[in-house]
Formats: sequence, C-alpha cells, structure tokens
Amino acid sequence: MGSQDISPVLTGPVLVIGTGLLGASIGLGLRAAGVPVYLQDISPTVEAVAEDIGAGTRWSSLGEAKRASCAPQLVLVAAPPDVAGDLCVQALNTYAPHGDYPGATVTDIASVKSLPLRQVLESGADASRYVGSHPMAGREKSGPVAARGELFQARPWIICEHEAARTECVKLVRALAVELGAIVTALSASEHDETVALISHVPQAVSSLLATRLQHTPLYALSLAGQGLRDTVRIAGSDPRLWVQIFAANAEPMVRTLYGMRQDLDRLIATLENPTAPGARLDLAQLMSEGNAGVARIPGKHGTVPTAFATLTVLVDDTPGSLARLLADIGELGVNVEDLRLEHSTGADVGMAELSVSPAKHDGLVTGLTERGWKVVT
Amino acid sequence: MGSQDISPVLTGPVLVIGTGLLGASIGLGLRAAGVPVYLQDISPTVEAVAEDIGAGTRWSSLGEAKRASCAPQLVLVAAPPDVAGDLCVQALNTYAPHGDYPGATVTDIASVKSLPLRQVLESGADASRYVGSHPMAGREKSGPVAARGELFQARPWIICEHEAARTECVKLVRALAVELGAIVTALSASEHDETVALISHVPQAVSSLLATRLQHTPLYALSLAGQGLRDTVRIAGSDPRLWVQIFAANAEPMVRTLYGMRQDLDRLIATLENPTAPGARLDLAQLMSEGNAGVARIPGKHGTVPTAFATLTVLVDDTPGSLARLLADIGELGVNVEDLRLEHSTGADVGMAELSVSPAKHDGLVTGLTERGWKVVT
Repeated sequence: MGSQDISPVLTGPVLVIGTGLLGASIGLGLRAAGVPVYLQDISPTVEAVAEDIGAGTRWSSLGEAKRASCAPQLVLVAAPPDVAGDLCVQALNTYAPHGDYPGATVTDIASVKSLPLRQVLESGADASRYVGSHPMAGREKSGPVAARGELFQARPWIICEHEAARTECVKLVRALAVELGAIVTALSASEHDETVALISHVPQAVSSLLATRLQHTPLYALSLAGQGLRDTVRIAGSDPRLWVQIFAANAEPMVRTLYGMRQDLDRLIATLENPTAPGARLDLAQLMSEGNAGVARIPGKHGTVPTAFATLTVLVDDTPGSLARLLADIGELGVNVEDLRLEHSTGADVGMAELSVSPAKHDGLVTGLTERGWKVVT
Repeated sequence: MGSQDISPVLTGPVLVIGTGLLGASIGLGLRAAGVPVYLQDISPTVEAVAEDIGAGTRWSSLGEAKRASCAPQLVLVAAPPDVAGDLCVQALNTYAPHGDYPGATVTDIASVKSLPLRQVLESGADASRYVGSHPMAGREKSGPVAARGELFQARPWIICEHEAARTECVKLVRALAVELGAIVTALSASEHDETVALISHVPQAVSSLLATRLQHTPLYALSLAGQGLRDTVRIAGSDPRLWVQIFAANAEPMVRTLYGMRQDLDRLIATLENPTAPGARLDLAQLMSEGNAGVARIPGKHGTVPTAFATLTVLVDDTPGSLARLLADIGELGVNVEDLRLEHSTGADVGMAELSVSPAKHDGLVTGLTERGWKVVT
C-alpha cells in the first residue's frame, strides 16, 4: 500500500486517451463538474468530434509550454483491451514525476483487468501510480457522438487495487467514479476477471451460441417466438469487434466456466438421446432445479436480497398514451411499479404490460385497475 | 382431408378434461362467450375450484341421463404431455358417434404434438375426429385459481392438421381458438415440435444450463450483474415439473439442435484454450457475427419484419408515479412507446427507463423530454 493516506480531491486536469463513447462520456461528465479535461485519440476525427461536443480540449491543440504547465493529475485510458495496457505504460512514463509535479495517476477502463495490470507490472514503469478500473456502463451505439455525461450514474464502477498501488492513487480513481455518479466496488484484477467472465462474458458467449442456431430456422417458426427466446438471445446482437477482444483477453476464466457447461450439456444430450431410460427424468429435473437455484441467487434491485414481487398483466392498446394512462392510474392508486415489461404477439395490435409490484399491493391494484376499466389478465 | 367442408359453429357443450391454469382459463373464456362448458379433473379439489371460479359445471355433478343429453361437441384435453395422448384416445372412444350424435371433436393443448398424435393413430380410435393444438400462452403461476379468460388474447394458437383429420373437426378447433381471441397458425405436428424445440425448448435448456453456473458464484459478483445476465437466465426460473415432461416428450428435435450447439461450444472452447493462435480472433468474430445474424431474423412486433427502433434512456426516480409522469409526457409529445424496459443498478435509488420509439420520433422526443426537465441519458 502507499506511504501516504490523504484523500485526494479530483481537481484535474484529466487527460482522456481514447475519446470514443466511454472516453467522451467521461469528458462530458467531468466538464459538467468543472474539472478541466484534455482529449487525445489515435483518430484525429474522433478527437475533434469529442472536442466539438464539449468533452474537453484537444491536448494536441496546446503548445508545448502550455502542455508542460497543464500536466495531468489523472490520465484515463479508454481504449480497447488489447491496447489499454501499452497505453497505460506510455502514460506512466510520459507523465512521470519531475520538479513539483508528482506524476499522473493512470487508470484504464478496459473490461478486462488482469491483462493490463500484468503489462504494466512487466513493463518496469512506475506501477505505484497505476490503478485499473471498469465502469459497468455502455450503450448499444458507439463513438463520441453517442456520448452522455450521465452514462455512469447509478452504475457499478469496479476499482482494482493491487499490491504496488499507492493509496492516494486508488483514492483518486475512486473520486473520479464518485464524481461521475457511479457506485464503487473494490475487487482485485483476478476477482474482477472471474466475476465478469461469469456475469457477462460467458452469458454473452452462450447467448451468441444459441442465436447462431436461428440462422437457418424458418421464418414462420421465428414469428411464433415469445419473450423467452427474445430475452435469451437479446445480447447476441452485440458488436462483434469489441467482444472478440474481450473474449481473447479473458479466455482463461471463461474457459473454466465453459468446461462446466460442456459437461452439463453432454449430460443433457445423453439423457435426451434415451429419454425413457431409468433415471432420465430425474436427470432433467436436476438440471432444471439447479437452474432455478442459480437464477434465484441474483440479487434484486437496490442490492437487496432477491424479493418475489407479485406480477400482474394488463392489456394495453397499441396507441400513444395508453401505457401512460395505465401508469398514471397505478400512480393514483399509490402503487410503485418495481419492474415493467411490454410484450406483443405477432399480428396483434394489443400489448401486454407485465407489472411487478410489492406483493402487499397486488390485490388492491387488480381491483383498482379493473374498476377503472383496465383488462387485468394476471 | 375430410369429406365435408362446412364451417362449424362452436355452440358447445365443450368438455374440458384437466382444469388447471389453461383448462380453467379456456372454460372462463368460453363461458364469457356463452358457450356451455363442463369440467373434469383427476383431482376433485381442482375440479371444484374450477367450477367455483365460474369456468363451467362439473361433469360428474350431472346425472347419467343429463350427461347423455349434453354430449360434448368438443372435448378439450388440457393435461400434461405424458398423459394427453391417452386421455384423447379415451375421449374419442367415450364420445363416439351414436344415433344423431356425430361424436365429439377432440383436441389436446399439450406443448408437444407428435407424441399425442402418434398415440391416437396407434390406438385404433377414430383419429378423424382428433386435431391437436397448442395455445402459446401461460403464466408463471399455475392452478385454476390463477385462470383468466383473457389468457389467450392476441397469442398464437397452433393447430396441427393431419392426413386422417376431418376438415370440420379442424375448423371447429380453429373456431375455439378464434373465440378465445387467439391468432391461429397451422403447422403439422412434426413442424410444430421442430419449431417449439428451436424457439422454446432449447432456449429453456440453454438458459437453465447457464443459470446452473451461478449456483457457486460469489454473491458480490452476482450483485454486479446487469440486464444482460438477467435477461439470459430469466426463463431458467421456470417450473421443473412441466419442463421435465416437455423435454422428455420432445427429445429428438431438441437433441438435433443441441448437437449443433455442442459442436460450436467445442470450437469456442478450443479457440479460448489458445486465444493467441493464428485464426483465433477470426473464429471468435465468426461466432459473434453468426449470433448477430440469428437474432436479426426474429421478427418485430405485429409480425412485421424486424425494425430498428431508436432507443433512448431516461433517469426516473424510484417513487410511485414518476414512470407514469414520464409516459404521460411522452404521450403528450405524441410519441408511441414501442417497447419499454426498466433497469436498476445495485444500491441505486434511481432507475433507467429504456424506451424504443420510431426513429423519426427520436430526436424530437429527446428535445421535448429535456425541455420538460427529464434527464435523458441515451
């Protein structure tokens, strides 16, 4: 741990290297908080767009003297996993201590953390000023045009301390996450990579594996698909370019989990090849029950233990304002909607709004909505 | 095909055998339409509850003479897959033609269709009056207490003609589905089973296989789970008892699809075991792209071709009425919400409402909502 234990204030300047969606969003959020931000990107166009939207000032537009007087307090590398480590090493060397300047704290926000940490440690650069981190936020669009300063609000931001890291550098990265409205979680780099393999990378791979099966499915069959299939393959629509890098950089923890899946899949196939054999149904019941047990362990919202909300389904016309009228009625009945899901069937001009509410509120809500003329299905 | 081509009217009586959630819901829907319904269940309690909620009259409460004068026009078997076929055979024999009575048309609504058809054909019963069907509707609750007459509105209802089936029997089952508000699709039994294997049974198995991996995941890791994991494992929470029967009864089409998945999983594991080998990244990119292609083939709502809706995300307070106010504002701006998803982060008391709207409406909506004081993130 570091020798000092002061609580640093994020005053900037912050140099953002890589000004795509996430880098530019961080720039916007920091600028809104009055922190000076400089921008640098391998693409002059991307860098210029980020400046145009107000994410900061291009570092390259400053003269050499000006750059020397604006040496960054924090360098944030927002680049893909396969270059993040090298860029951190370069930043540690470029913004090293000299004179009164204590050197920059350097963080990267790549979605794998062991690889860049290893690259920094092996480089011989001053690893005490490096603290990797990972804001768990994103959008389906990319590039600085899609950037939003609020992107990190109420999202987890994982900060990966390591033995060589100085405490004040860890605290500075924490201050960055807090400034942007994120919720900080501390994990080691290997804990982080194990975690995201399980909660993000393997689910992504499995969703993609399932979705590939739909390439040759007749369209009439797909037109009958319900919410179950749609939910299960939704993330299979994600951008291949980023995921290829993530899979390659976090291969080891992913493979450990995939071995277990292959074993279970082999067992399922063997059972289904002979579904009338003794024990076959017990085997299938065990798979389903283990799945029940796994999904039940995911916490509910607000980080509370999983709560069984009561659900009800209401038919809504597919016209502007009908969902609003429904929710206005629910609000007037004093009920808070914990979750809401809209579902449509093929060919139907009517939708189903599935509402999750506190179990204590369920029956009164059904009565109240029915009195107000809503068709409550569930 | 049948010898007559008349369009029969569903006048009843309809005898519902099996009065759980689906059977009782059908009874309620038909009673609301004025069709006489009789109820029969292996459990006297379940049968009595179904009568109490108004799904029909217990068949066993009629005297023998009364039963003879009320011979059913249609028998609907709403029983689990492993008994549905036998119950159809019994019904075909019990309600065979005699005197003026033309015999009952018999349908079952089990979620597999080849097995009951084969059982009927092999039984020697009059298969010309049997037409299997499958309403694609359900709830997470079960039993007649959860029954709702509107359960089938705007949902697909698959009707499986076969060579021996009489046309008027097919049309009568179609009339039943239409009466209950469902949207009819005609498939052969084997087409049906292939279809549901792909769009329902294999996704269920894959979701369960993934969720079993979460049984030993540390809770701190699960507390970081985002919407991607939650969506992918949502259906893994389904009832094992029903799914064991479905898997066992539709094993063959499931296994064919699972072979393909195992091959792809083996390839993925081999690639990730050696992620720096030549061609490894190309392999990963291909998996992701094939997943993209598969998910893009699922039609949008209303049976239209998939449409790229524009999305925007709005921060909403976690208090009653705030979502309603948002949707009221959207309605006043003249925009129809095509899809809505509420998302919360662990520990946060603020939610994100992700809205899908027509791309033409997107920019005006962002401006309008921002003017009304909403924080638009996306």
